[in-house]
Amino acid sequence: MAGTDSTQDPILGGPAIVLVNPQLGENIGTSARAMLNFGLTDLRIVNPRDGWPSERAVAAASHADTVIENARVFETTEEAIADLQIVYAATARPRDMIKPEATAREAAVEMCEAFQQDRKIGVLFGAERHGLSNEDITLSDKIISVPVNPSYASLNLAQAVLLVAYEWFQENLRDGERPAGRQLSVGEEDRPASRKDLVAMFEHLESELDAANFLKPPEKRPRMIRNIRNIFTRAALQDQEVRTMRGIIKSLAHFRTPDKSKR
Amino acid sequence: MAGTDSTQDPILGGPAIVLVNPQLGENIGTSARAMLNFGLTDLRIVNPRDGWPSERAVAAASHADTVIENARVFETTEEAIADLQIVYAATARPRDMIKPEATAREAAVEMCEAFQQDRKIGVLFGAERHGLSNEDITLSDKIISVPVNPSYASLNLAQAVLLVAYEWFQENLRDGERPAGRQLSVGEEDRPASRKDLVAMFEHLESELDAANFLKPPEKRPRMIRNIRNIFTRAALQDQEVRTMRGIIKSLAHFRTPDKSKR
Repeated sequence: MAGTDSTQDPILGGPAIVLVNPQLGENIGTSARAMLNFGLTDLRIVNPRDGWPSERAVAAASHADTVIENARVFETTEEAIADLQIVYAATARPRDMIKPEATAREAAVEMCEAFQQDRKIGVLFGAERHGLSNEDITLSDKIISVPVNPSYASLNLAQAVLLVAYEWFQENLRDGERPAGRQLSVGEEDRPASRKDLVAMFEHLESELDAANFLKPPEKRPRMIRNIRNIFTRAALQDQEVRTMRGIIKSLAHFRTPDKSKR
Repeated sequence: MAGTDSTQDPILGGPAIVLVNPQLGENIGTSARAMLNFGLTDLRIVNPRDGWPSERAVAAASHADTVIENARVFETTEEAIADLQIVYAATARPRDMIKPEATAREAAVEMCEAFQQDRKIGVLFGAERHGLSNEDITLSDKIISVPVNPSYASLNLAQAVLLVAYEWFQENLRDGERPAGRQLSVGEEDRPASRKDLVAMFEHLESELDAANFLKPPEKRPRMIRNIRNIFTRAALQDQEVRTMRGIIKSLAHFRTPDKSKR
């Protein structure tokens, strides 16, 4: 318990680490250990292949038990990130989608600034073999990539977590050096939407688009959805803007619903 | 082979990673993997507990086989670092000795500069359980420490290697940004001594001090030697200065040897 009391150390409890479909308990354990070395304690696990709780995870965590004990398990990525406002996707493979990218170091600078503004932040990490799905990346604001030897890029899950956590911690140590002027003013209107509200907006929009036969043919539907979602995650919508968007969708659908024949 | 041809990538083959008395083959393998991700290929192993070659090391290296295959094994730390000119010691525990310290990031900046001047550089890592001995640290110019969560500092061997290698690689990527003016002129007289010459100087000095009954009582001898060696490693002696020191020791001893009764 000693090491993980967040009241003792203000930087504990930083960004959430979200492991999506991890395969091996060992890797969850070593990821927890990597996290705690750099003061991260909020571990979330989406649908772990070998079930939960995991003895192997505890064994590999090497006294980072509290992180494992307090880990939360979710069925879907959407649920795991519902309360988050800023979401990064850690991925090695380049993706065929328009999404801003940052190195782990650049992301750490951004995360520290956002954290100081009480934003809820998380980083998604994919399964050992295949990484994140395009759908998971679509739910994220930005891609984190770690610059590695181009002829041998083979970081494992816990190593990727370690480097992201390391950069977060180093940037926090530099805290005093950061110019205070960079802090944005935080008003009621200036608050990034939670991922829950954003996903609800996506689903609202997509159900209306389905009803309007827009998302066709079926084989193109997933890609169309990804492209649409990426537009809005790139826009980094504020709370108020999501409400506005919901209003727009609702009003358009309202126009369509009563009398389809008129279209 | 593809990933490790040092003729293809000028940054491959940077600092040597020296694992001193590693216990588990797995950790040697994961260290090799960590190295190659960040372009390091010169692995040296001092007296591995479970022997060498190690099937477990190969299995854990995950296609970083060439690093394992080309690893060199030595009996002593002195032999492993004989050709090196600048040696860092990676250690977590604070030591009771006067030795300059650098974070992994600061050390990476220094190492890149030294590498550009064709210095031969290495980083020592200790055994899993106990880290480096004070004697090994005494042979080093500087301590590398990774800033971690003070209430949970539990990096394993390969994680420590990963972070040092990561910082080296990131600093190399920044290479173009570094002002050219920082490069020092390199003359024949301005060349750090090799560790081999430095150790030979130490042994020369200590044998003469033994003969002079200086290193007494016996239980204090190891500590006295550490303190003396630390003075000279802190001085970062040049080639020429080591030759000068050898001359001084020899001339003093010459004065003593012919007629002990006169002292």
